[in-house]
Amino acid sequence: MIAVLKTGTTEQQIENLTAWIKSQGLDVHLSRGSAHTILGLVGDTAKIDAELLESLDIVDSVKRISEPFKSANRKFHPDDSVISVGNTAVGGGAFAVMAGPCSVESEEQVMAIARAVKAAGATMLRGGAFKPRTSPYDFQGLKADGIELLLEAKKETGLPIVTEIMNANHLPLFEEVDVIQVGARNMQNFELLKELGRTQKPILLKRGLANTLKELLMSAEYIMAGGNENVILCERGIRTFETYTRNTLDLSAVPLLHELSHLPVIIDPSHATGVARLVKPMALAAAACGADGLMIEVHNDPAHALCDGAQSLTPDAFADVIAAVTRVRNAVKEQ
Amino acid sequence: MIAVLKTGTTEQQIENLTAWIKSQGLDVHLSRGSAHTILGLVGDTAKIDAELLESLDIVDSVKRISEPFKSANRKFHPDDSVISVGNTAVGGGAFAVMAGPCSVESEEQVMAIARAVKAAGATMLRGGAFKPRTSPYDFQGLKADGIELLLEAKKETGLPIVTEIMNANHLPLFEEVDVIQVGARNMQNFELLKELGRTQKPILLKRGLANTLKELLMSAEYIMAGGNENVILCERGIRTFETYTRNTLDLSAVPLLHELSHLPVIIDPSHATGVARLVKPMALAAAACGADGLMIEVHNDPAHALCDGAQSLTPDAFADVIAAVTRVRNAVKEQ
Amino acid sequence: MIAVLKTGTTEQQIENLTAWIKSQGLDVHLSRGSAHTILGLVGDTAKIDAELLESLDIVDSVKRISEPFKSANRKFHPDDSVISVGNTAVGGGAFAVMAGPCSVESEEQVMAIARAVKAAGATMLRGGAFKPRTSPYDFQGLKADGIELLLEAKKETGLPIVTEIMNANHLPLFEEVDVIQVGARNMQNFELLKELGRTQKPILLKRGLANTLKELLMSAEYIMAGGNENVILCERGIRTFETYTRNTLDLSAVPLLHELSHLPVIIDPSHATGVARLVKPMALAAAACGADGLMIEVHNDPAHALCDGAQSLTPDAFADVIAAVTRVRNAVKEQ
Amino acid sequence: MIAVLKTGTTEQQIENLTAWIKSQGLDVHLSRGSAHTILGLVGDTAKIDAELLESLDIVDSVKRISEPFKSANRKFHPDDSVISVGNTAVGGGAFAVMAGPCSVESEEQVMAIARAVKAAGATMLRGGAFKPRTSPYDFQGLKADGIELLLEAKKETGLPIVTEIMNANHLPLFEEVDVIQVGARNMQNFELLKELGRTQKPILLKRGLANTLKELLMSAEYIMAGGNENVILCERGIRTFETYTRNTLDLSAVPLLHELSHLPVIIDPSHATGVARLVKPMALAAAACGADGLMIEVHNDPAHALCDGAQSLTPDAFADVIAAVTRVRNAVKEQ
Repeated sequence: MIAVLKTGTTEQQIENLTAWIKSQGLDVHLSRGSAHTILGLVGDTAKIDAELLESLDIVDSVKRISEPFKSANRKFHPDDSVISVGNTAVGGGAFAVMAGPCSVESEEQVMAIARAVKAAGATMLRGGAFKPRTSPYDFQGLKADGIELLLEAKKETGLPIVTEIMNANHLPLFEEVDVIQVGARNMQNFELLKELGRTQKPILLKRGLANTLKELLMSAEYIMAGGNENVILCERGIRTFETYTRNTLDLSAVPLLHELSHLPVIIDPSHATGVARLVKPMALAAAACGADGLMIEVHNDPAHALCDGAQSLTPDAFADVIAAVTRVRNAVKEQ
Repeated sequence: MIAVLKTGTTEQQIENLTAWIKSQGLDVHLSRGSAHTILGLVGDTAKIDAELLESLDIVDSVKRISEPFKSANRKFHPDDSVISVGNTAVGGGAFAVMAGPCSVESEEQVMAIARAVKAAGATMLRGGAFKPRTSPYDFQGLKADGIELLLEAKKETGLPIVTEIMNANHLPLFEEVDVIQVGARNMQNFELLKELGRTQKPILLKRGLANTLKELLMSAEYIMAGGNENVILCERGIRTFETYTRNTLDLSAVPLLHELSHLPVIIDPSHATGVARLVKPMALAAAACGADGLMIEVHNDPAHALCDGAQSLTPDAFADVIAAVTRVRNAVKEQ
Repeated sequence: MIAVLKTGTTEQQIENLTAWIKSQGLDVHLSRGSAHTILGLVGDTAKIDAELLESLDIVDSVKRISEPFKSANRKFHPDDSVISVGNTAVGGGAFAVMAGPCSVESEEQVMAIARAVKAAGATMLRGGAFKPRTSPYDFQGLKADGIELLLEAKKETGLPIVTEIMNANHLPLFEEVDVIQVGARNMQNFELLKELGRTQKPILLKRGLANTLKELLMSAEYIMAGGNENVILCERGIRTFETYTRNTLDLSAVPLLHELSHLPVIIDPSHATGVARLVKPMALAAAACGADGLMIEVHNDPAHALCDGAQSLTPDAFADVIAAVTRVRNAVKEQ
Repeated sequence: MIAVLKTGTTEQQIENLTAWIKSQGLDVHLSRGSAHTILGLVGDTAKIDAELLESLDIVDSVKRISEPFKSANRKFHPDDSVISVGNTAVGGGAFAVMAGPCSVESEEQVMAIARAVKAAGATMLRGGAFKPRTSPYDFQGLKADGIELLLEAKKETGLPIVTEIMNANHLPLFEEVDVIQVGARNMQNFELLKELGRTQKPILLKRGLANTLKELLMSAEYIMAGGNENVILCERGIRTFETYTRNTLDLSAVPLLHELSHLPVIIDPSHATGVARLVKPMALAAAACGADGLMIEVHNDPAHALCDGAQSLTPDAFADVIAAVTRVRNAVKEQ
């Protein structure tokens, strides 16, 4: 970590600051330029609050050289993490396909979709039981009943299930859930992250709509710092000024997160674009740039003419996506 | 609400959709153009899930004409809401000045600042006890002990206190807190909002870093739908590509929120800019465009040389801001 | 085009507005709801200035149903445009690979890179002669001399050349240039676009850093309205709050632009990310989602140890990218 | 300027880089940490291309300590610049009020507005003759005829005139124009900036929709580097995800630009918000935070029922704004 001091900082001020930094267990290297004095902080700087340091009157700016995340950092865990999920795995070369309805609505619906996505190659069943909605007047999900339906579908198809949690107090309902999802709006709900860090459940952590990759990794760190290393990262689009898509899918997140971290990275093209027609091309692009899996919304057409989300595929369209994704993954691997 | 249907939609499909909309208790007006058919939905369209409607295969796009918020909507409550807070009030012409330290750190610190900001004209004491931090390794606040210290300062100075909640399970600790703050990162923590809606405490709701004003009002609606109408809105900067400031303060939020809603609007120039030198000009600007109050970080200099936030003012600088703000408010009111 | 009128609009005002719209050669459909009156404008609404209409006191909002671009619109040109460039083509299934140095610096450099990229499979040579730089003190390119060097490289290798124009007065220098590039900062330099519309040169039009896809197509329309239909669109990253990458590559632009327009779409992963390590994964992703080509920065290592851009590949790395891109394209095409 | 070298950089590489930096006329301070070596570049680092340096394989990151702008930098010109414009001035305590129609449309219109805004306290007349429009099919302005009409209004009212240039070839038409405006879309049209730098005309330079303040100052630097120091900066809103306003007015730009530069700063609340109702509160806020002037759109109501822009004020509303602005400016100055 480097701290650039302001012009006019006195020797006494530099001495005081240096003493304080050393009291935090770090070493300090001083470098005096013609206009600026620069302090190099050496040691475990993850403990230092950069914002606090930058806030000092004598400090012009602070620059981290080491990343502030440790458990999630590839430097200290060079090998890919492989997260076991029931009979399957995420990361380390395996390709996860999480598919299912946006909202769980009925036994009939969940069962039909579960069977269809399994046949098409899904490795997990996703479905919303607790639904975060912008409006209090919109449908909030079937809640506990929705989880029950997912568990029935799991029993029949054998597919592990992924579903979102919105409140740590609901954790007892998630006992048989295989992967607990933290939605984009809760990415910095630190209290929830801490509670999930006390479990050993695989956590699918979605990037917030205006969060940087560093912040995503710091939120993963919250979970991992509690002792739960089973974190799966998920990019699902960020908010920009573009209006043709609901959000802008940031695919450079895939290679960047792989470089910075050992955790697996999943892409959700359904939420990122909000447009069913864009799910296939974006899924192929995600596979091409090395994503460890996909999360895709699928609806069961006939019983469901009304609610087929703008972002949902039919089972047939989904099967076509998965076949093409497999071809692209093979093409990338060939030499 | 208007739904534009896609070219090629059949009569049967239009009939089905119209029947469904009517089954939701709304009336439908049909308008056929050369290329597009347009459906006008008449009635209480707040109940309609626009996203669901837009997701239908035959629907090209949906446009709300009425706002989806009701309790927060000025149309149905033409008069300004005035929120009583202890011996003071927020909204309706009163000007709230919430001042205090970023984090509560010690009895000495809180007492000194509380006395200083009271003398300078603050109407409430703010201070962080539970601190949302990006990193799990950064200081997380004094928690319950911090609230105790705030309550002692309240006892001595008579200033009502404002402090942030991060977990609904902590509510019992907030019993004597006067205003409960919901931070930007929790603006769409809907579970927390629902719990706060079951209390009668004044809630200071901060806008999220990438949230629109409509979303802010929908989050207020979550609280109000539960029966708690005591909501104070707070703009504290949004995330943009600019790097000189931590965030970009969106002051047009003040007149816009006043137009859309009857709820009071507070500006937090300290967090919005992250730079102490910018607090005064932005506070004056907020006063000039009609804000109902300010939230400002103040530190007590001598005992606190190290932690004076980049965004914190000394008590003297704070007193100077308040004096100037008063002059600006008077100038705006004169005719 | 739909115009929603404000509550309280009088009959006389509606009549006046309707008369004015009809005077512009359009038909008007009136639809009266309980609270709002809606006007449907039928006919060639591309002529109508939506902003002007929206600015009227009685108009609440305006919504275009038809896109405001015509020459660039796929609706009126269902087949892909194929732009001939020397002995090669862009669009309609052909895959263009434009490669070369960021800046043209010397004969030796350009010749070496031109030969290397040709050998590796490039179909065109790109290189900057006129360089748009944020600072007036940074290197501004070799200008006319740079174009000379590119033309020499073209003579030797047979590769058509692509280079950026910044000033319509320089057009005489571009007579033998095969594709004229308009940079992101000039995407809305309408005077330049109009001049280019009077030529028949293929124009590579880059999306601005904060421009929407609709604005990109409107800028293409400026060129096409002048009579030059040879426009190639290029996505090169948009500005967001993310800091690990220079910009955020918006790959959903590829399928969206293909849906909206018949013009070919090229991806520039070098500028979009600003990081050489990300060029390959993003190039593969672009190929997977259907891009019509790539623009990639390549430097010649040995003579150029100093200037190897953070975003430039060596010729060997470039050859590896092209081989993998070919495999991915084949995988996508297979059924 | 600080360059952080990557772990694993060899001594030979450090020596080579150091030698190259010294060959550019700079001195180098070396600081070795346990993991990273840091180079401090001392001297006139404005000449160094930071991007080039950062692109080197051995460089992890580069951080400027001094700003890359010189002529515009307050450090080298501590006093406010005062730009003379006809019989008035901009900057240094004077308050400029530029008012007039969005587009010049007729002699009658311009004359009526010119007289009205003069009576209400405007110090300059603004009006668009060359109009940058997103669509080639929208009205492009009266061009040379529009400038003629503005000059006639100047003759009658004595108000200096401000109007936008889009093409350096049009400069001869601007001979009697008092202030030449560069629009947001041309902020980085470097060729245009260079040409304007060769004149001695006052230039009003608008910030681009997605440009940082540093980039705005670098564009000012382009003009000043050519010898024209008469630059007026203008903030007119940046593009964000908010949809209630056309853009988001960034008022913190006022104190920040004043700190970084000696150039005057004007606010354009009409374009920033796109909503007439927001012009007054935003104008007051701009005055409160120290802006050197305002640019406001005014239309003449009766003759102009149709085209009154969503963002334009009537002359009466404009007079009311100016009176309130004056009160606020006085209130800020009082002690």
